[in-house]
Amino acid sequence: MEPSSQATRSVAVIRVRGGGQSSASDNAAAEEPLEIRLHRRPFAVLMRTPGEDRELAAGFLLSERVMRHADDVGAIRHCTEEREGAADNVVDVTLADPSRLDDIFANRRNVVANSACGFCGKVSIDSLASDADPISVNTRVSASSLTALAGRLRRSQAVFEETGGLHAAGLFSPDGDLIGLAEDVGRHNAVDKVVGRMLISDALPLSGTVLFVSGRTSFEIVQKAVYAGVPILASVSAPSSLAIELATRMGVTLAGFVRGDSFNIYSHARRIQT
Amino acid sequence: MEPSSQATRSVAVIRVRGGGQSSASDNAAAEEPLEIRLHRRPFAVLMRTPGEDRELAAGFLLSERVMRHADDVGAIRHCTEEREGAADNVVDVTLADPSRLDDIFANRRNVVANSACGFCGKVSIDSLASDADPISVNTRVSASSLTALAGRLRRSQAVFEETGGLHAAGLFSPDGDLIGLAEDVGRHNAVDKVVGRMLISDALPLSGTVLFVSGRTSFEIVQKAVYAGVPILASVSAPSSLAIELATRMGVTLAGFVRGDSFNIYSHARRIQT
Repeated sequence: MEPSSQATRSVAVIRVRGGGQSSASDNAAAEEPLEIRLHRRPFAVLMRTPGEDRELAAGFLLSERVMRHADDVGAIRHCTEEREGAADNVVDVTLADPSRLDDIFANRRNVVANSACGFCGKVSIDSLASDADPISVNTRVSASSLTALAGRLRRSQAVFEETGGLHAAGLFSPDGDLIGLAEDVGRHNAVDKVVGRMLISDALPLSGTVLFVSGRTSFEIVQKAVYAGVPILASVSAPSSLAIELATRMGVTLAGFVRGDSFNIYSHARRIQT
Repeated sequence: MEPSSQATRSVAVIRVRGGGQSSASDNAAAEEPLEIRLHRRPFAVLMRTPGEDRELAAGFLLSERVMRHADDVGAIRHCTEEREGAADNVVDVTLADPSRLDDIFANRRNVVANSACGFCGKVSIDSLASDADPISVNTRVSASSLTALAGRLRRSQAVFEETGGLHAAGLFSPDGDLIGLAEDVGRHNAVDKVVGRMLISDALPLSGTVLFVSGRTSFEIVQKAVYAGVPILASVSAPSSLAIELATRMGVTLAGFVRGDSFNIYSHARRIQT
């Protein structure tokens, strides 16, 4: 497969390398929601990298047992009648045998969910912005504290060492004290466990904290940080395009590729003292 | 956090190292479904690592905007009245203000989904087993071909090199020819794109193929392989406990930690010639 221009977005970053920093342009993996409709009826929303949307819809509906063979497919196409800009993010699927539709929707209850979002990136961010306040606290972390957290998270990860199979999320003070840690096969779950514990103990908003995650930073991870009031989100890995957009809009400081004494800052760099 | 016995499962593996192989016992990250109910009404099913289920439910419901503060929580507890063995995988949440329930369920439509599953690991596997035939084809791959695929997948990954942010899934012939490749911010999506393309072109079942994925192998990844008829599934990373159980039950050869000339086999080793 050739790289598609759909699959990446150019983003502005601040590269921190040891003591120095510089502005640069980088590419982030594109992330946008895709709404899958069955005979124009909303069926699911997936966060995905644009491109091969019809194939994605077919494969997803195979996993959902909505389709099993090519014979089951009526048509799969983007919804050209959608409002401007959103058409690329909606695919309508028709079945060769539409009589199965009512059963399909009736059995839709047991869906494995991870988080709610709107219909396209723009709408998602707008609806989130109307539902939560941007984070404006002045919590700060030094570059050296931030880079130390990657090692601290890894050393705290008991099960990862044993299995290599778990993601981790750690909540830290700006000085690097561990407030909470969770491991899970799912990145989103690890964040939910850490944040959920703080919610139960009535510690929200988490204004004075840094949330460090072991995996890639997606839209949904930033969304969880926003709802928990976390001002600084960092990861050893890459953020998606939509994660950066959302962090920028909602006042979250987003750092990525935190490795050794280096990292990138994607939004609200003022909270990181270099 | 101390390692919890809940978080890992002991599994039998065949370790292939260069030319030799040996049987061993290893630990896999535990994966099981958690059903979250609101006032006893099913709300969502998450695939998660057991432990801190109440915290996970609280954090998930924060992300869903069902709860925002500790004051919103009535109670969060495991459902002790469930049938034997399943109680640990169901959490019931009550809200301090139950009058919001109808609105919450009415607004549940825009859920971000990834795949369907049942209510607990056992039920999931049973229902999948009743809905798909175990894979019995005699497709074989040599150990050297299998280890070569990891490099081939990485070299084909155009966008990963550029962004570091994408998962990949590659479909190969047993001789190592690339049949299809997709990249996506989501592991599940990458598999769905590759498989969906084959469904659209009426090439299912994928009996003569090896599916290689860049990330961790979860229950849902194995499920997608089963529905597509893929006999051999391999990854550079770790499988979850439920992925191994499902692969064992459904006739899928599952290999993990494919790195250099080494890998582990977790199920149906007969298809890999060492």
